[in-house]
Amino acid sequence: MTDRNDVSDWWRTSIIDMEPGRIAMRGHPIQDLIGNRSFAQMIWLLVIGEDIEGPRAALFEAALVAAVDHGPQAPSIAAARMAATCGIGLQSAMATGLNMLGNVHGGAGEQAVELYARIADAGQGALPQVLDDWRAEHGKFIPGFGHRFHKPVDPRAPRLLGLIDDAAKEGIVDGKFADIGRGIEAHLAAERGKSVPMNIDGATAVVYAELGCPPPLARGFFGLSRSVGILAHSWEQMQQGGRNKGPTPPSYRWTYEGE
Amino acid sequence: MTDRNDVSDWWRTSIIDMEPGRIAMRGHPIQDLIGNRSFAQMIWLLVIGEDIEGPRAALFEAALVAAVDHGPQAPSIAAARMAATCGIGLQSAMATGLNMLGNVHGGAGEQAVELYARIADAGQGALPQVLDDWRAEHGKFIPGFGHRFHKPVDPRAPRLLGLIDDAAKEGIVDGKFADIGRGIEAHLAAERGKSVPMNIDGATAVVYAELGCPPPLARGFFGLSRSVGILAHSWEQMQQGGRNKGPTPPSYRWTYEGE
Amino acid sequence: MTDRNDVSDWWRTSIIDMEPGRIAMRGHPIQDLIGNRSFAQMIWLLVIGEDIEGPRAALFEAALVAAVDHGPQAPSIAAARMAATCGIGLQSAMATGLNMLGNVHGGAGEQAVELYARIADAGQGALPQVLDDWRAEHGKFIPGFGHRFHKPVDPRAPRLLGLIDDAAKEGIVDGKFADIGRGIEAHLAAERGKSVPMNIDGATAVVYAELGCPPPLARGFFGLSRSVGILAHSWEQMQQGGRNKGPTPPSYRWTYEGE
Amino acid sequence: MTDRNDVSDWWRTSIIDMEPGRIAMRGHPIQDLIGNRSFAQMIWLLVIGEDIEGPRAALFEAALVAAVDHGPQAPSIAAARMAATCGIGLQSAMATGLNMLGNVHGGAGEQAVELYARIADAGQGALPQVLDDWRAEHGKFIPGFGHRFHKPVDPRAPRLLGLIDDAAKEGIVDGKFADIGRGIEAHLAAERGKSVPMNIDGATAVVYAELGCPPPLARGFFGLSRSVGILAHSWEQMQQGGRNKGPTPPSYRWTYEGE
Repeated sequence: MTDRNDVSDWWRTSIIDMEPGRIAMRGHPIQDLIGNRSFAQMIWLLVIGEDIEGPRAALFEAALVAAVDHGPQAPSIAAARMAATCGIGLQSAMATGLNMLGNVHGGAGEQAVELYARIADAGQGALPQVLDDWRAEHGKFIPGFGHRFHKPVDPRAPRLLGLIDDAAKEGIVDGKFADIGRGIEAHLAAERGKSVPMNIDGATAVVYAELGCPPPLARGFFGLSRSVGILAHSWEQMQQGGRNKGPTPPSYRWTYEGE
Repeated sequence: MTDRNDVSDWWRTSIIDMEPGRIAMRGHPIQDLIGNRSFAQMIWLLVIGEDIEGPRAALFEAALVAAVDHGPQAPSIAAARMAATCGIGLQSAMATGLNMLGNVHGGAGEQAVELYARIADAGQGALPQVLDDWRAEHGKFIPGFGHRFHKPVDPRAPRLLGLIDDAAKEGIVDGKFADIGRGIEAHLAAERGKSVPMNIDGATAVVYAELGCPPPLARGFFGLSRSVGILAHSWEQMQQGGRNKGPTPPSYRWTYEGE
Repeated sequence: MTDRNDVSDWWRTSIIDMEPGRIAMRGHPIQDLIGNRSFAQMIWLLVIGEDIEGPRAALFEAALVAAVDHGPQAPSIAAARMAATCGIGLQSAMATGLNMLGNVHGGAGEQAVELYARIADAGQGALPQVLDDWRAEHGKFIPGFGHRFHKPVDPRAPRLLGLIDDAAKEGIVDGKFADIGRGIEAHLAAERGKSVPMNIDGATAVVYAELGCPPPLARGFFGLSRSVGILAHSWEQMQQGGRNKGPTPPSYRWTYEGE
Repeated sequence: MTDRNDVSDWWRTSIIDMEPGRIAMRGHPIQDLIGNRSFAQMIWLLVIGEDIEGPRAALFEAALVAAVDHGPQAPSIAAARMAATCGIGLQSAMATGLNMLGNVHGGAGEQAVELYARIADAGQGALPQVLDDWRAEHGKFIPGFGHRFHKPVDPRAPRLLGLIDDAAKEGIVDGKFADIGRGIEAHLAAERGKSVPMNIDGATAVVYAELGCPPPLARGFFGLSRSVGILAHSWEQMQQGGRNKGPTPPSYRWTYEGE
């Protein structure tokens, strides 16, 4: 007979174990992790469940560093700055900014890792077919390529690709996903007659794919990364002050389109 | 005359500058930061506006590592796990978890830095008076000391204090806030006739105070740190599955106290 | 040439128009709405853009009333209660609770309206085929039918259906979606050899479908309705007190499944 | 001895009672409430725990109707519209908008009820002293009075006051808080040599105070009311489309203030 009060295995985790006076994460006593893991290594360990070391950890750090901010025009940052003037706490303002992220804003990284994985599975020769299938399923956007603002190129992408190339030369990563990314670039350029270069999402997706990260975590890691900019802007705005700051100056309102 | 459409300085920041094809954060082109700053260094640079190097950066990493998780019993983690079963995206689940943090859950770090700063300003001799004043203002809790679960001691605190002591010996930090923290411990022990040791919040507050971090950022950095556990648990729960998972098993409900 | 500062039509709405001293919503000066519309009528007017009157408004009120709460076991309510003990404001706690709702928790209403609409389009005779197609697309759950707790029947559903039947008899609504809902019930009962009765989501979906409400608004209205319970429980919990209240008692933690 | 698994009274409520097939809220079977309470009456019953009837219910409806929207310039509405373009669900977008509300945006109603209660306790003759004390404690803003946009007057306030006046004449409410509100208006006008009229927050606070609502619920009810506008704008924006829509047009960015 079920004991209605038996909650002993309602929550189950392999992330953390605890007794009074003892905390272990992924099997390591917390005091062995503090001072012996970088924050990025700790992120990988806690989320993925494995250690990440040396040059692989450096690639992960690079991807996390790349996406921290894209200015007060990004909805995530704009929301955090507005929230900072509405009389809520710093962490609540962070949550407001983070709660902007979804399939469109902050989701392309996951989608690009998925797309790369499909091409890897099908073989590079099937790249055009996989892209066609993707568009049939998801619409015209190829996640991770092109940028409405950064012309000719998003400066974060070639830098990340360069780091992957270096690591591939040294056998630290395979390099196959960088090839796939460049294959998509070449295909889109031929198709459209103009350059549609890899953007931040396409480039971090190459890093995450090379590191063997499951696609949804590209999204999760983007969230962690962008939270840094969200905090920085919330805090700067709190220091600037302002009350109830809307998206545009108070003198401007909006266009009324009713009858 | 004000131009109602002039929005040119409505949003102002010294964090990020951007032109098509160019992104600079705190004056550094993003491509110079990617691959040359650890994630923790990038956090400090973006939020505080200064570089943090070597052993000081290591202390910051230690504080960030220490607070990532406290298990599914913590409201922030519990909410993230529940959210992961409700059919929302990974980043939305992260926001739900983060949106638990406030003055009580995740606020003690900031409060402890403030308290330490008051004692530093008043001089260690004034410690009893400052504590009395604090309690008159804020109630009986001294932020950063005692733990309802970790007896006799929160294992994260002595480890962090040890790192600060080492750094103080080498002149990397002053060590004065570690002394203040220990002074509070001693005072509370004498006052209550039992040990009320520093907890994670008191210990990370020592680190943040030694590094010269403004008090509210102790709260912001806790938010960043805990977001890691929030992501790890959201992701683990998504993989476990479950639909609409409440806090306790479905067979249990709650106690009705109405008439 | 585009004026980089021209924001005059960046935000466009037909919901609200405003000048200093004047506010009009859906074309009505606000002072004509205050005191002359019920809250439910105002919701319909603002969101749908049309007036809703008399017995149709009463049906809408009934659907809103039905879904306000399902107790502290529901993730939305549990999160709000936990949040109320974490030191955040009442509205932040409400947002934490609301931010639980998604495709699984609070999404079945929208899905059921969509399903009913498909059956209405295909004709009742095509009901089995439409259900098969739905399952091929979405998995085994038929949204709006069956309840893991309320056996034999969710008491909210027959009451709502009764109100729709009465309204159909008087020609206020068509009644076709009530028939479709009952058709699904009959089909599932035959298929599984046991009753799989309509639940709250299936029944509110009948109401919303009869009122001509677009499917996504069934989800939005559920959010508004459940926000009432979220507020009630946040507020009750704030009065009860508690600090950092986790999902289960502190003495209980969780099952560690690591090695 | 405590049973570590005994969760039987961890969550306690007098709001809702449930058994399989039975749901009672505030002592009423849900099927008796559906169809017999307006949505506003249900809100009052669930949150306050008492029935509200006839003309008192109408006043509550009026306050809820008054605050539903203030256009895309309000941070709560702006955030919801941006969120609707970021690829998150409708309820998540609602949570993003709601999570803007706090002490500054959406908090003045609670503060005004508190201020009125202090004046009621001290007697109208003490009004100047209470206002001075308030400012010493909270800063220069008197919550509920003056509006940076609506000159000469916020059209919602006189309408709400008129309804309260009518109700006071009929003995439905006392009218004392309307007097207090007008007393503050008169005092501020004399003090500043210009009109500082009651705004939406001051006026809804009169309604809530007259109805005997605890101050924090003025904030909670504002949250419920504004959620309607948040839903309406999220939904309208979803229909308009747009991807990743920032606060201002993409051609405009922000002013960089760094070195």
